Amino acid sequence: MARASMLLWVLIFILHAPSIAQNIQYTDASTLPLYGKPHFSGPHYHRVDTTRYNDMPPAVKVLSTHSAGLVIAFRTNGKEIHARWQVKEPMKFSNNMTAIGKRGLDLYIKRNNEWIFAGAGRPDDNALSTHKIVSNMEDGVKECLLFLPLYDELVKLEIGVPEGSFVRPLEIKWKGKVVIYGSSITQGASASRPGMAYPAQLERKLGYEFVNLGFSGNGKMEESVGRMVADIEGADLFVLDCAANPSPQQIAERTENFVRQIRERHPDTPILMIESVVREGGNFDQVIRKRVSDQNKNFRAAYERLVESGMQQLYIVHGDDLLGHDHEGTTDGTHPNDVGFARMLKLIEPKVREILK
Amino acid sequence: MARASMLLWVLIFILHAPSIAQNIQYTDASTLPLYGKPHFSGPHYHRVDTTRYNDMPPAVKVLSTHSAGLVIAFRTNGKEIHARWQVKEPMKFSNNMTAIGKRGLDLYIKRNNEWIFAGAGRPDDNALSTHKIVSNMEDGVKECLLFLPLYDELVKLEIGVPEGSFVRPLEIKWKGKVVIYGSSITQGASASRPGMAYPAQLERKLGYEFVNLGFSGNGKMEESVGRMVADIEGADLFVLDCAANPSPQQIAERTENFVRQIRERHPDTPILMIESVVREGGNFDQVIRKRVSDQNKNFRAAYERLVESGMQQLYIVHGDDLLGHDHEGTTDGTHPNDVGFARMLKLIEPKVREILK
Repeated sequence: MARASMLLWVLIFILHAPSIAQNIQYTDASTLPLYGKPHFSGPHYHRVDTTRYNDMPPAVKVLSTHSAGLVIAFRTNGKEIHARWQVKEPMKFSNNMTAIGKRGLDLYIKRNNEWIFAGAGRPDDNALSTHKIVSNMEDGVKECLLFLPLYDELVKLEIGVPEGSFVRPLEIKWKGKVVIYGSSITQGASASRPGMAYPAQLERKLGYEFVNLGFSGNGKMEESVGRMVADIEGADLFVLDCAANPSPQQIAERTENFVRQIRERHPDTPILMIESVVREGGNFDQVIRKRVSDQNKNFRAAYERLVESGMQQLYIVHGDDLLGHDHEGTTDGTHPNDVGFARMLKLIEPKVREILK
Repeated sequence: MARASMLLWVLIFILHAPSIAQNIQYTDASTLPLYGKPHFSGPHYHRVDTTRYNDMPPAVKVLSTHSAGLVIAFRTNGKEIHARWQVKEPMKFSNNMTAIGKRGLDLYIKRNNEWIFAGAGRPDDNALSTHKIVSNMEDGVKECLLFLPLYDELVKLEIGVPEGSFVRPLEIKWKGKVVIYGSSITQGASASRPGMAYPAQLERKLGYEFVNLGFSGNGKMEESVGRMVADIEGADLFVLDCAANPSPQQIAERTENFVRQIRERHPDTPILMIESVVREGGNFDQVIRKRVSDQNKNFRAAYERLVESGMQQLYIVHGDDLLGHDHEGTTDGTHPNDVGFARMLKLIEPKVREILK
């Protein structure tokens, strides 16, 4: 028995010899720059320190633990890049997102001063995943930006490169910072991978750090959440893309107060309100159609009252054209697919550029 | 015990009373027109009768059972549409597709002579799913097209409408028929929902019935598969979008023979060869980049030899621009996301229109 076991181990060793020859050494990503985090306290990969904002609604607190919009920046001379990461629990069934988008990783590398997609970190269905994101690269130092899971709590992340190569911190010189508060659409449903969430796309296109405060189904403009958003320092722009979540009545009741909470703390910072996308689920469902129409009507009315009251630096993007007009811009009638996000960006990107100029 | 059981049933009855008030009656979809099936034998929702083509490679036979590209057509005056469907087994983990795309349903309804997205059938993680796809519709008869799961074997499907409403067969007057043979990309990875697979989009845009013979990872042009494809009657066009799967050497060895197998049985039918998309996984991975380049070089060389040999009605679409040039067109470096499919269509649709004219 002992001899059989011994033989087995020898066999395993021989079979794995090539990979043993090329050892991968891992660096804990918590030692590398992390961007997109609104405040600097709380668990490393949580978006919000919920002990500090303990009065937020429970659902918002849970969603605060998701790493949507967070990115790790590093330099490496490795010819391949691996990742080993752990999320909170094994895969829960989801029908409108890929597992890569929900709990995977998304690597971009700089080339000619642009961030270029290099590879996705494909998650396992267990909590712990190990994946080789890219290999066979040319020699030289690469600047890397790694987008973290959109819809899961990241517990630990390590970046692996072949032994002898280095992984070092990359400090990014962002032009500034933009905070987006909103719904599941802001959080990234249904982007095919984390880097396709529209705030992530804007981040790469504009060179501004984006703080993603999308709370799936829960961007409802509660006062306790408003305090947390208003606490964020150093933003060049606040974007409110939350009209899809509150009821039309809640929008009528809460919008002005929420905007004023931010304005009070940030007297000169532009605030951009984005109406809800027109849900394609309402193409034939008259109830959905009316609800979105009422949400946008009330959101727009609040905007107009705020402008009439004399508020400066307040902008709006209307929702009617956000998804285009062929009705193909969603995965499930509600959440934009990548085509939907591309269309949203066509209207949102120029507006954001204009404001930031 | 018996009394407790009785009480439980009374309770269940009371809790379900509202839904019982609006009974849903189901129609077995196998009594409704099914389009996109290449031959008329074998299990209803299988694409190919594998007993008839028993010499095909085992992987192709398994993939033949997937319902990619199949559609059900019906008319209903129901104000809501439900579906109850069973796939072969509980959800297997997949990281580059949504469950809706993999094993869900996708409903389109005709409006102003166009097929408009109406709702997705969200699957459960069990084999059996029940979902209300759309509700609160206006009065009147709707013409419906239901796209079936891309990556699963559909065992049974029923369409539900409120009691008193009808579900009746809808015969569609297609302008003709197009057969597409290919890879996972053809089969539909990573479309966000079944109707976003690019052959499905072409079907709606062009009004031709599309037969989807995408075999994930296995569009390798074996002679046994060529016989099955060549057996299909009544096609106005054969499309070969398979260059992503065989090795460069297999492409060099097999392409001409495969094309000739089709040409022999269909002397006058146009054949369109589509080169592989340039894999974004090769943005930095030099091995992937070279492999795709070699695949396309050999596919194109085979095309040129066939043209030189005098073959008529043979066309090609080059791969270089198929995914655009910002490198954002895939979910995982290989499979187009909806943005990637939209870009492929920009080049493929005009070519197909030109050929079919």
